[in-house]
Parts: sequence; C-alpha cells; structure tokens
Amino acid sequence: MDVCVVAIGDELLIGQVTDTNSGSIARIISPAGWRVAGVEVCGDSAEDIRGAIDRAFSRADIVLTTGGLGPTKDDITKNVLMEIFGGELREDAQVLENVREIMARRGLEMNSLTAAQAMVPTSCEVIQNRLGTAPLMWFENNRGVLVAMPGVPFETTGMFESEVFPRLMKRFPSRSVISHRTFITTGISESALAGLLAAWEENLPENMHLAYLPNAGYIRLRLDAKGDITERASIEAAADEACAAMKNIIGEYIVAESDITPAELLLAEAMARDVTIATAESCTGGNIAGAITAVPGSSRCMVGGVVAYSNDVKMKLLGVSAETLAAKGAVSEEVAAQMAEGVCAATGATLGISTSGIAGPGGGTPEKPVGTVCIAVSCKGKTEAVTMHFPGNRKRVVDRAVNYGLLSAVRMMREK
Amino acid sequence: MDVCVVAIGDELLIGQVTDTNSGSIARIISPAGWRVAGVEVCGDSAEDIRGAIDRAFSRADIVLTTGGLGPTKDDITKNVLMEIFGGELREDAQVLENVREIMARRGLEMNSLTAAQAMVPTSCEVIQNRLGTAPLMWFENNRGVLVAMPGVPFETTGMFESEVFPRLMKRFPSRSVISHRTFITTGISESALAGLLAAWEENLPENMHLAYLPNAGYIRLRLDAKGDITERASIEAAADEACAAMKNIIGEYIVAESDITPAELLLAEAMARDVTIATAESCTGGNIAGAITAVPGSSRCMVGGVVAYSNDVKMKLLGVSAETLAAKGAVSEEVAAQMAEGVCAATGATLGISTSGIAGPGGGTPEKPVGTVCIAVSCKGKTEAVTMHFPGNRKRVVDRAVNYGLLSAVRMMREK
Repeated sequence: MDVCVVAIGDELLIGQVTDTNSGSIARIISPAGWRVAGVEVCGDSAEDIRGAIDRAFSRADIVLTTGGLGPTKDDITKNVLMEIFGGELREDAQVLENVREIMARRGLEMNSLTAAQAMVPTSCEVIQNRLGTAPLMWFENNRGVLVAMPGVPFETTGMFESEVFPRLMKRFPSRSVISHRTFITTGISESALAGLLAAWEENLPENMHLAYLPNAGYIRLRLDAKGDITERASIEAAADEACAAMKNIIGEYIVAESDITPAELLLAEAMARDVTIATAESCTGGNIAGAITAVPGSSRCMVGGVVAYSNDVKMKLLGVSAETLAAKGAVSEEVAAQMAEGVCAATGATLGISTSGIAGPGGGTPEKPVGTVCIAVSCKGKTEAVTMHFPGNRKRVVDRAVNYGLLSAVRMMREK
Repeated sequence: MDVCVVAIGDELLIGQVTDTNSGSIARIISPAGWRVAGVEVCGDSAEDIRGAIDRAFSRADIVLTTGGLGPTKDDITKNVLMEIFGGELREDAQVLENVREIMARRGLEMNSLTAAQAMVPTSCEVIQNRLGTAPLMWFENNRGVLVAMPGVPFETTGMFESEVFPRLMKRFPSRSVISHRTFITTGISESALAGLLAAWEENLPENMHLAYLPNAGYIRLRLDAKGDITERASIEAAADEACAAMKNIIGEYIVAESDITPAELLLAEAMARDVTIATAESCTGGNIAGAITAVPGSSRCMVGGVVAYSNDVKMKLLGVSAETLAAKGAVSEEVAAQMAEGVCAATGATLGISTSGIAGPGGGTPEKPVGTVCIAVSCKGKTEAVTMHFPGNRKRVVDRAVNYGLLSAVRMMREK
C-alpha cells in the first residue's frame, strides 16, 4: 500500500526546521509492506497546500499531512481541508477538554488561540491527540483517505504509530509483505563493497534488492525481499539464503547483522561481557558519551566520562603527563592512550574510549591537518591507539570520530 | 526567484536517511530574496524521478536535484536526465582525475564503478566536485535550469554555496530582496506569545510576516520583510520599526536578537566576560558539552567537563557528598548544585552547568516522574538550582534540558 506525505510549514521550506516525520512514518509502515511513495514539503499558503494534496492523491490513495496545525496557524490548513472535503467548523468538547488539561499541566494559561484548536471540520472524524493540543483529523472522499496530523515530531510519530496506522491497516487490508535484513559494515568504501558484491547482486531474484546506506564511518546494507503475504515463509528462506551468500563474500567487514547503531552495538557487547564504559573526549566534546547515553538503559554499563577540552583538564582529571603533552602534543596517540587509561583509573570503568584531534575549521598544521584524530581504546589493561584522517567539516569529523571510537571499542572487546 | 528541490533516494523514502539538503539550500538562498517553493522526495526509480522533475518545473524555473548519483546508483538519474535534456555519455577527463585523486587520498582502490562516475551526459555543463567523487551537472532547456548535485550533505551544501548558487544568481539576476530578523524567546509558550502579539501582527504591513519557530525549550521568532531591491533602505527601516514595537510588547522574553543557538549565545556572553565554562552532566550525558564544542572556536572558553552518569563518578570526580546523595537522591537540586560547584573546583572553570534527571523511558517514580530534571548553574561562587518537568520522550527531555541549562547560564552571567 502506498502513502504520500505532505509536510506543511514555511519553517521547513526556509530550512529552519527539518522534516523528520516522513522518515518516521516510513519506518513505522515499512515492516507491514507499506511504503511512502513520495514526500512533498510545502509552505503555509492555501494554494501550496491545495496543490500538494492534489498531487499526492494523484499518486496514492492515502495522504498524510503533517504540520500546518497548532495555535498560530491552523486556520489555513483547516480551511483548505474543508474546501476539499466540505463541512464547516464545530467545537469538539473532548478536544477542548484535552487542550485545557495540557495547558493546566504545563502551568500555562488558556487563551482564545489555544481554544480555537478545538474547532474542527464537521466533515472529519476526530482522533484525540494524547500528546499535544492539536487534534488529528481523518477525512475520506472518493479519492481516498487523508489524515491531518500535527507537525511536532514527538506527537506525529507517537500518534501515527499508536492510532492512525492501526486504523489505516484496518481500512486498507494489505496482502503484500516486505522482509528487511540490515548489516553494518566498516573499514571498506561503498564502491569497493559494490565491486565485491556486483556478481552476487546480478544474480539476486527480482523480488530482492540491496540498498547501500553510507553513514559517517560505516555503511549499512539493507536487503529487501517483497512478496505476497501467503508466501512469507519462502520469501524469508530465500532472503536468508541470499544473505548467507553475501556474508561469504564480505563477512570480514560486517560488524553487526541488525539495524543497530554503533552505540547500541557497543552497549550490547558490553552488557554481554559485564564491561563498564567511560569516555575521555577532547575533539568529540561529549558526543561519544552523548551517543551512548542516548540509548535507554545505557546506565547499566556507562559510568560516565570526562570532556577534556583543555590540556589542563587532560592533566588534572585524566592524569595525562605534562611531559607527553609537551613532547608529542595533545593530538598524539600517546596522549590519547593516556586519556583512555586515565578515565578508567579515574572512574573505575573497565573500558575507556578517548579522542584527541583537530575538528577544524581552525587549528590545523602541515603535520597535523584538520581532520587528524587520535583515537584510543583501553580495555582491561590493554590499550590501542590509532591516528585517523577524516574528511569533511567540523561536524563530519566529529561524527566519524565518534563512530570510529565506538566500533573500535566493539572490536577490542571481541578480541579479548 | 523560486527554486524547487527534488531529493532523490530510496533511503530518504524509507526513513533511513533524512533530507537536510533542501533546508541547507533554503538557508543559503534566502538572504538573496530567493526561496524554495517546494521540495519533493522521490525514490530511485526512473518513473519517480521523471515525474518529480516534471512537477518541479511546472512550479519553478530552477530545479535542483540532490542524490541519485554516486558509484552504486547514478545510472538511473543520468539516464532520466538524458531523456529530458538529450545527449549521450562521454568520459570527462577532469572528473576522472578528481576521482583518482580522492580515492588515492583515502587510500582506496579505483574500480570500474568509481571510474563510471566520470561518464557524464554531453548535454550538460560539468561543475567539478571539489568535495567528493560525483560531478555536478548543469542542464538547461526551454523549461529552465536543472542542476544535479550529489546527496552527501557536506558535498551538496559546500558545492551549492561556493559554485552553484553564484552561477544561478548570474544566470537569473534578481530584483527582489527579503530582509530577516530573528529573535530568541524563552519562558513563554507559542500560543501565549501569539496572544500577546495578535494586535501587533494584525497591523503589520502586507510585505511583512512573523513566523513562530518552536524549538526544545525556546521559540525563535522570525520577521520577514519583502520588497524590490531598489527600496532596500525603506524596507529595512520599516522592519526595524516593527521590531521595536514588538520588543515593547514581549521584550522580557527575548534573550537574543539574532539567529543564534543557545550554545553560541552562551559562548558569546562568556567571551565578552572572560568566563570559562565547564559542564557536569548526568541525564544529558555529554550533550551540553557536545552543543558547546560544536561551535568553532569554543575552546577559547570551554575547558571541559564531566559526564557523571553513575553516583560513584558524581562523588569521585565532582565531590558530591554521599550524605546528600543518600538523603536527597541523585535527582535533586542539592546534588545538581554540588555537581556544578564541583566541576568548577575540579577544572578551574568560573562557570559550571549541571544536570541530573530522569530522561526515561524507565527510572521514573511518583515523586520524580520521567522528565524531572534538576539543573544548576554555578557562576563565580553563586549557585542556583531548579527542578523542571519536561514533556516528551528521552531525546526531547534531554534536548530541553540542554537548552534550559545553556540559557540559564546566559541569564546568570547577565545578572552578575
């Protein structure tokens, strides 16, 4: 089943906010064999919204709009929807009560703008928004179903997954299925992987497809196998067989066989081995710790870390020697190694990950240009350090260093 | 001048990658009075790409495509472009040399897939990609100009800003101008702000518009004023006047009068006052440090910090007292205050920002539910701590706590 997403909001078009809702919707519907056939981002004007909805219905029976609702701008969207689906505004008592409750809980005062959110077209079925003030609205005509949802990602995703998608699946029972398998590879470029897999890809059956999804420092490979729901078992078996053949070719580069982030992988390995983790970050500035602690339950393994931006903090909190700093410089494998060991000593963790580098744009020298990052992992008394040269701007260098550090720690743990 | 963006790639439609290029393009062209009129995301199929380009040209004279190029999938896009603009493939010697150089620098081997990137349609003008292997291609016919760009954000943004946009401005000289003014507000809801500003907005001249852009923990307000380039001075004067009137109404909630992130604001204030910064983070797990160090030049003020996830690290590295932890719990204003003071003592920084809270999904109790975050700032000997209750999921709670912490530190510095 195809759906089209129309993401509404001037803030999206001028680049002050990024649309992440269409991706969340895709991830939610994909396991059921549904797909997002297209996404259009349009501004807060009646003409743009009308045009985008019309183009979307020409491509799919289900149109999901996100945004264009909310206290300061929902009039335009509601009016366009009434032009298309008819009806007039009525006050919905349950929505009004919901808005009142939310405002009270947040300690905010109700005003006429907030109260206006309870005005909904008579032509729609209201889906109460448990996560915010703007109600969801389900419209239907001979072109198909349109569900208008709020734009705040947390509300959109939460309500779509729990309420909207279950109703859509009931309304459009589906017979097709897509099976996904994801692999995480590292230490090899996209084109080299594709070269190795060219003959294998050539021989894939028609209903299978391999996608290359490059990330900072690693590449995800996703094999999709499509078919009728009655043939699920044979589809799964054929996909397993294709994956086994693929692993024979590129197995040495595969670090995980599921759609898992480097931080999730590190935590899974650490939990399995009763390893506790600490970070000692200079150029990555807290982002390795941030990636690890973004995973719910990370406190079972993660004890903490030090962001050692200045040399002074490297010495004071991590015990890096002044002599090494003077002789080798802060960006050196020796200092990175002392940082990784130092954070284990300071926190009692059994595994330490450290970075020291030049993220740019300033600070580069001919010997140590921007992008030079020394990364060390200390695991149960053994320490390894490397010097990497990452391309790209400040954010990209940091992202790559973060993932390299996390995946190096996984490798060190596995080698033990 | 209007442009439409077509973002190509199955990975965007299935939600494994988020399109950030269209936003970057919008931010680059907006100061010149240009705007992105629409964005369409389409899959890697010839039919989808053809349809999206056709729809884009029906709305704008300039179409920018991102993605759909690269070693494993550029055939489809190049073929569609040759269907539309004619021509056949030729090898471009300069592109080939560029690909060779990049592969050598990255220590990777050249293969036939990589070399195929040097094959370009004869119907386009090639713009050499200084940041990656896939060349940019400029096509032109009676419907307008199409520039095909790679999808890697760092390459797209860098090449668009330095090469593509200057050429487009030369090709389509513009007579209109948009003037933007951005304000950062905090401590007030979107609907309350809109209520206060309703009468003022009503009286804005036709060429001006106020946009509300909510973020985690703060709201950006952006006033746009449009007009002919010859009237720039009077447009600027009228916009200044409108802003002055707005500040009379909501001035107490405005913390900055430019489009600046909380971290940039904190660093600007710290530099102006010779304040040095350290962080002591529990539930935000390194994200405050990460936000600060994301700003180039932050090392002038930022000395570092401690991610104190476990109580043990809170005591060992930050000197939090075991008695306070036992009596008040880790999530308490007392512990947060000791963390902020402790990180100043440990690092020698003059300003410390700390967080201790329950980001969820687990860990909540009736007294301290998920979303409870204690935030403290210690500045030159004075410490203030508060308890906040943030709505939303783990990421949202962390994002709000990060911004609240950063903006609290700005406030404390200004009060001194």
